[in-house]
Order: sequence, then C-alpha cells, then structure tokens
Amino acid sequence: MATILHVCTTCRAGQPVPEGEICPGKRLHEALVASGAPQGVTIRAAECLSACDHGCSVALSRPGSWSYVYGRMTDADAAEILRGAGLYAASADGLVPWRDRPVIFRKQSLARIPPMEI
Amino acid sequence: MATILHVCTTCRAGQPVPEGEICPGKRLHEALVASGAPQGVTIRAAECLSACDHGCSVALSRPGSWSYVYGRMTDADAAEILRGAGLYAASADGLVPWRDRPVIFRKQSLARIPPMEI
Repeated sequence: MATILHVCTTCRAGQPVPEGEICPGKRLHEALVASGAPQGVTIRAAECLSACDHGCSVALSRPGSWSYVYGRMTDADAAEILRGAGLYAASADGLVPWRDRPVIFRKQSLARIPPMEI
Repeated sequence: MATILHVCTTCRAGQPVPEGEICPGKRLHEALVASGAPQGVTIRAAECLSACDHGCSVALSRPGSWSYVYGRMTDADAAEILRGAGLYAASADGLVPWRDRPVIFRKQSLARIPPMEI
C-alpha cells in the first residue's frame, strides 16, 4: 500500500513572506523532493493542511493505517522527516516503535487519526 | 459511506484528574453518545489522538474525503460537534461550506489530511 507524505506548501509559518521569496511550506516541499522519497513513499504537495497555528506541517497516510500530522517543521528537518516516512512505509501497520521515531515526530505531533474502515 | 467521529477518551486536557472523577475526554465522549449521533455518523472512542497539547480532540473521517481534527473541545461543545459531524456526513465530499461550519470547527482546527487514495 502506498504511503503518501503530504506537505503543506502554502504555509507561511506565521510570518510575512517578502516579495520574490518562496514561503516556508514550499521551501520544505522542495527540500523533501530534492532529497528523494524513500521506498514506498510518495511526496505530495497539499494546499493547506489547516494547521496554520503550528508552523509548517506534514502528514503521513496509508490505507488501513493510522494517519499522523506533525507541525513546526522546517526545511532543515527534511532528512528526519524522510527517515520517519520510510519507517512508517516499511512498518506492517503504520505503527513505528516509539524509540525508532525521529525526535521531531515524537515531540511535534499535532494529531493522529485511526485507520479508515473501508 | 460511513462517517466516523473519533473521540479521544484518554484526554486529561493538561490537568490532573482527581481520584474517582472521569477524565475530560471520557466526559466529552459520554456527552456525545448521550446526545445521539446524527444520521450517517458513528461515534467511536479512541485511545489518544496524539493531540495532547491541545485539549480534548475529535476527528472526522470517511473514505474518499478529507479528514479533520479539532482540539480544545469540552463536553459543553457536544451539540455543535454533532451538528458539524452531521454536515460533514451529509456533504458529497466532506467539504462543508465555511460559513456553515460550527465556529469551534472554524477556529479550533488542528489539522486536515487529504483523502486517501485506495
């Protein structure tokens, strides 16, 4: 089952974006794409994940698994986000052992949603 | 397609729970169940939605639709939560017009996740 890493590309992280500069969300998306998605993960731009009070956000989802949303991400976190996404994709059920999760996933969780019933 | 209203029943809303009292999340769940779910909505208890820094949380999900998570909910919000869940369930795609959404949904969004690809 394909894991999608959703990246909010409209995020301004609560700051004005000077003319000619790209917003933090788009910068994060570009950093993730440039680094390359791990096996089984597709990186997808999303226009607003409605987590605007919590900096740049990303979400992980996959049919039959819990979905996760993380906030206060920056382009400097790209490598750890991709590592966490890879562990999620490689897991049987989307539940990655706590100790293996990137610290930014442990500390900056915004929410998780139980698996969809189909 | 069935809409699930997930309710975090382990939420302490950042407060200690005195012995013999039930926690705010369980109280919210009981208030929702007592009010009765609107048509097309199933209320489901969840053990932690990982939104612990943002008070009691609920999530709405349905196959093929955006999922939403809302925070800082209390049992006093039960009626408005159920009204919002009913509108979500009655919509074609889970997208309820902004002006129709309960104010607590407009102002206390934690995140939304794009529809799952199946």
